[in-house]
Amino acid sequence: MSGKPRLAITVGDPAGIGPEVAAKALNDPAIRQLADFAVFGDRRLWRLHGGGSMAEFDFRTVPAADFAGAAPGVTLVEFPEVDYDAIAVGAMSAAAGAASIRYILAAIDAVRVGRLDGVVTGPIHKEAIQAAGHPWPGHTELFAEEFAAEDIAMMFAGGPLRVVLVTIHMALADVVRTLSTAQILRILRLADRTLKQFFGIPVPRLGVCGLNPHAGEGGRFGHEEHTLIVPALDQARDEGICVFGPLPADTIFRAAMQGKYDIVVAMYHDQGLIPIKTVAFEESVNITIGIPAIRTSVDHGTAFDIAGRGTADPSSMKSAIRMAVRMHQARAAAQPDRTPP
Amino acid sequence: MSGKPRLAITVGDPAGIGPEVAAKALNDPAIRQLADFAVFGDRRLWRLHGGGSMAEFDFRTVPAADFAGAAPGVTLVEFPEVDYDAIAVGAMSAAAGAASIRYILAAIDAVRVGRLDGVVTGPIHKEAIQAAGHPWPGHTELFAEEFAAEDIAMMFAGGPLRVVLVTIHMALADVVRTLSTAQILRILRLADRTLKQFFGIPVPRLGVCGLNPHAGEGGRFGHEEHTLIVPALDQARDEGICVFGPLPADTIFRAAMQGKYDIVVAMYHDQGLIPIKTVAFEESVNITIGIPAIRTSVDHGTAFDIAGRGTADPSSMKSAIRMAVRMHQARAAAQPDRTPP
Repeated sequence: MSGKPRLAITVGDPAGIGPEVAAKALNDPAIRQLADFAVFGDRRLWRLHGGGSMAEFDFRTVPAADFAGAAPGVTLVEFPEVDYDAIAVGAMSAAAGAASIRYILAAIDAVRVGRLDGVVTGPIHKEAIQAAGHPWPGHTELFAEEFAAEDIAMMFAGGPLRVVLVTIHMALADVVRTLSTAQILRILRLADRTLKQFFGIPVPRLGVCGLNPHAGEGGRFGHEEHTLIVPALDQARDEGICVFGPLPADTIFRAAMQGKYDIVVAMYHDQGLIPIKTVAFEESVNITIGIPAIRTSVDHGTAFDIAGRGTADPSSMKSAIRMAVRMHQARAAAQPDRTPP
Repeated sequence: MSGKPRLAITVGDPAGIGPEVAAKALNDPAIRQLADFAVFGDRRLWRLHGGGSMAEFDFRTVPAADFAGAAPGVTLVEFPEVDYDAIAVGAMSAAAGAASIRYILAAIDAVRVGRLDGVVTGPIHKEAIQAAGHPWPGHTELFAEEFAAEDIAMMFAGGPLRVVLVTIHMALADVVRTLSTAQILRILRLADRTLKQFFGIPVPRLGVCGLNPHAGEGGRFGHEEHTLIVPALDQARDEGICVFGPLPADTIFRAAMQGKYDIVVAMYHDQGLIPIKTVAFEESVNITIGIPAIRTSVDHGTAFDIAGRGTADPSSMKSAIRMAVRMHQARAAAQPDRTPP
């Protein structure tokens, strides 16, 4: 071992832009020197996309069955059993969906046995995965199941902002209908624990959004702040968590950007993602929290429409790699005696 | 007349920071040369706040009863009947609320008879106005009533973003419950007309948010896009309005900032105000649309806690003035034969 973090990069759906942004990110020497990388994919994939090798760096290859851990530099972990001739760049297919899951499961196995420190994931395609017969709607659920984690959440980081979501992919009517003190409290605890363990923040300050405009303005525009959010904050304070709110969502993000809060707890998807994607689009990173591992991800899709053209932007992949490295360093500093199992 | 726009500035609640930010904005020669100004307030007010005159510019004064139109430079329109000794800086009072409304009504009268071209409003205080026995919850409703306008809306502009709200101050549960095709269509028409008349945009491109995450993702996360928003967009297109959507709210604002849309139509308060206030906090301007007049406003409150200290930031007041000037110029260009009544 070189002492650097050992990171998996899964290239995502082989028909999307994942293989391209992975190669382009690693073509940057500043990225390569951050960690020792195990790229779960295949040489054939880069040829498929670029007409030649897309890698402007040295790498060694190893069949996934023989992978024993990341060596210094870049190791390409290959899957000889995948028939890449059955995959067309830019097209959804069960074959591509199956391959994308194969990469992830192998990377997770390597993390679980201590051969790697974390996983940076490229974009997968929901329909392709379903067509391949897999049950998971996305990475988050797959990681939760593989790590047997019950309390997970989606966190986003970009520029000066960190955001965690209390609810994720549901209709706004269902947010209003199902939001609960228990769920809010669950996320507060998770955010607090995560910022301590993986971000090196001894006392995380959590800024918590209201659900309604002006955080309800004393009950004039809704009562959920009083009935649902305040009780969760009270309980969190009893547990020693440093929470602020409920605060008006239109001004809390600015305050967070100015350093007032370490993370903003948003009640629903758009409340949290509008500011992240508006302020820090290219560098926004998606992080699964609540699993005993580092998992960061690009914050874009497979972009089949531009796959294979060589025009994909690797900024988000680079940000996801940098974030995984920082999380690894913070975890190592917080748990100096932690040794791989 | 000097040929410049003739703008009213109402100083807002005399106990708040309005008089200070008005004086500070006009202390900037670059602002003063943009228009001829009629400031609805009083010399005594600046003394009350600053211990002396806050004005670092020449001005003439006239009692409101004798005001016959803005002369070149700055005219201070005064209200001798107001007892400023009854008003304490930084404290809510009925006397201050009554004075703030007096300023606005006089300014609106002057606009209505063609003596002024528009009004830039300082911050008023809801409870003070109510204590003074006035019915309006805010400027928007007051302007709507005075101009007998039925179709009004709140628009916000800041940096590279313009946003108009379909619903304003209501609980999120009520947004979900009451959102209607008719209301969405009303706002689409109003935004289109306003951008043509007051912003000099011949074919405004309206980007329209979905209500749900990912704009419902084809019905997976809610149906309002299909049942409420699409019918409004179809009807708007039939009327020749250039609309796009419904689009995912987390990415639409970035696209608008990059020039893809001239305005974003947001379904609810936080959806529209989170990006405006996060991206362009200091320079965000509030605009009442749907009235046959220009009305822009600072986008902050009376800030009683810092009133009288001399530390208030006039950036938002300056932005509101610049916006009113630009709207006047665009209107003049669009209606070259328009003459004051």
